Amino acid sequence: ASASDRIRVTLFPGDGIGPEIAESVKQVFREAEVPIDWEEHYVGTEVDPRTQSFLTWESLESVRRNKVGLKGPMATPIGKGHRSLNLTLRKELNLYANVRPCYSLPGYKTRYDDVNLVTIRENTEGEYSGLEHQVVRGVVESLKIITRQASLRVAEYAFHYAKAHGRERVSAIHKANIMQKTDGLFLKCCREVAEKYPEITYEEVVIDNCCMMLVKNPALFDVLVMPNLYGDIISDLCAGLIGGLGLTPSCNIGEGGIALAEAVHGSAPDIAGKNLANPTALMLSGVSMLRHLDLHDKADRIQDAILNTIAEGKYRTADLGGSSTTSEFTKAICDHL
Amino acid sequence: ASASDRIRVTLFPGDGIGPEIAESVKQVFREAEVPIDWEEHYVGTEVDPRTQSFLTWESLESVRRNKVGLKGPMATPIGKGHRSLNLTLRKELNLYANVRPCYSLPGYKTRYDDVNLVTIRENTEGEYSGLEHQVVRGVVESLKIITRQASLRVAEYAFHYAKAHGRERVSAIHKANIMQKTDGLFLKCCREVAEKYPEITYEEVVIDNCCMMLVKNPALFDVLVMPNLYGDIISDLCAGLIGGLGLTPSCNIGEGGIALAEAVHGSAPDIAGKNLANPTALMLSGVSMLRHLDLHDKADRIQDAILNTIAEGKYRTADLGGSSTTSEFTKAICDHL
Ligand SMILES: CC(C)[C@H](C(=O)O)[C@@H](O)C(=O)O
Ligand SMILES: CC(C)[C@H](C(=O)O)[C@@H](O)C(=O)O
Repeated sequence: ASASDRIRVTLFPGDGIGPEIAESVKQVFREAEVPIDWEEHYVGTEVDPRTQSFLTWESLESVRRNKVGLKGPMATPIGKGHRSLNLTLRKELNLYANVRPCYSLPGYKTRYDDVNLVTIRENTEGEYSGLEHQVVRGVVESLKIITRQASLRVAEYAFHYAKAHGRERVSAIHKANIMQKTDGLFLKCCREVAEKYPEITYEEVVIDNCCMMLVKNPALFDVLVMPNLYGDIISDLCAGLIGGLGLTPSCNIGEGGIALAEAVHGSAPDIAGKNLANPTALMLSGVSMLRHLDLHDKADRIQDAILNTIAEGKYRTADLGGSSTTSEFTKAICDHL
Repeated sequence: ASASDRIRVTLFPGDGIGPEIAESVKQVFREAEVPIDWEEHYVGTEVDPRTQSFLTWESLESVRRNKVGLKGPMATPIGKGHRSLNLTLRKELNLYANVRPCYSLPGYKTRYDDVNLVTIRENTEGEYSGLEHQVVRGVVESLKIITRQASLRVAEYAFHYAKAHGRERVSAIHKANIMQKTDGLFLKCCREVAEKYPEITYEEVVIDNCCMMLVKNPALFDVLVMPNLYGDIISDLCAGLIGGLGLTPSCNIGEGGIALAEAVHGSAPDIAGKNLANPTALMLSGVSMLRHLDLHDKADRIQDAILNTIAEGKYRTADLGGSSTTSEFTKAICDHL
């Protein structure tokens, strides 16, 4: 491949276990000869006034320029006067949809072996508006904001995704029986988009009922689309069904074709630097990113190598009940390639 | 027992399958010689201007006078100009805490056999404020209201309940990392109450993480207390873990010592009148009510008879995979008494 075929991708190794698991990803991608050049950016040590957070302006510029990024866990430093790193990224890059494919991993036993769904979360508004105030002493309120623009945008993405991935059904999750105006608007937008996709079955499920159905029979669901907070809750619930956040990939889609894949688990400072962390979620997020880049062959190869390594069970990190180090697990994946 | 030992209890049989399952409860309570006289009230056929709903003023007066009630499912009739029946009851009777004990039923197999927890939901405010408006075309907002008074009240109830029932831990569920003011106030109130109960372990769990933990390992939880919408979501999730709303009792606690036990499942119009409905949730709600009345012997006897009937498996209704009618199942419970 000539140099011009290579793709520049922004890499945020993040904090805690971030650098170690990012190292694993780089190693596996190198072994699979993925034509990517990483542009690494670390979180700054002081607040950058241009981002009002510890994220540097340069790192945001890098994602805007490359349009593709991969991100490890970022712990927001404690203190006042700056914004959460994750929320800043969502806002600044207009990451409007958080997409999490969630499927039972062959050979890794949980109470469920029949999960195969994708949650698509509106990522910019709703209960995350940040608008809160005290009305009188002892009475506080938060505003949930739903807009037609953001609802249509995420609904469009969900149906587009369903169609592109050969999925048959989109379920809109809501509580419009209580929040008739906000969730009602969200549903209205989903219905409008649904009409343009007659080949996809569309249904609406109330969030409480959805959670009950998910724990009883997750196979009932295919693609789920929902406002911000419900997405936060349901995507973690679904991750729990298959073993936790250490195993689930995630990708954020932004305006202008930006995609920022990320491991959504924490930075696990207690095991940082000890070669014990599980790089699976970040690696599978990297796979999501490759699919976004239409590098499906590479994506398939890497995904198979990861899943086969886990399924065989000989090399697993401690969180999966094994005793392998990060490097041993990573090497096992490379050997499978 | 003299007539004066008898307790008057308001009974709302409700709609759909409501009357049949209420009949089962009456039969079982009669067999167990529970000293209760039922005062039955049906939902009206037109809006009562004094309640702005299909609930009659007399039925609310009955609960206020008796202070104890049992309620079957109520489907809110479609149409404008009146309020949901369930929400009206909560508002008018100031039912501030919804309490749902949730435990794996011996002999009824689900993916979980280790559930034994109680969800306590704030039932009057939060996301259920009903305050919503359109800001400009395409932009709508809902207000979530949290007050110190309601938060303290439900927290007090949760700790009181935990202590009275020999439970060791109370977990407050929240999203205060995002809704710092509203959920922050809720947590502050929980902390204040926790200080008065040093013998009870207190912890705070973010709702997304809570849902993940619940599906991975529900045995981690004991008593959970939370704002309205999180309670709606989590109590249904927990019901799903043990088999669904057909099996889970619920009791609402109101100001002035009112307790309204209720089956939280729907009115199942498709099987109404066919002698197919499962009365378990309403019966176990009746058991919760008996405990509230300190009739623990009767409560234990009836609960054992229900659980043993289900565990034996010979008589089960269709929703539990059996082929018994409501009357056969009810008779089997009576035979166990
Ligand atoms: C850390 C927190 C602010 C964040 C969220 O609520 O969105 C997290 O739970 C997530 O899902 O990325
Ligand atoms: C029917 C609906 C309004 C109600 C609620 O959201 O509270 C129900 O889900 C419940 O839990 O009782």
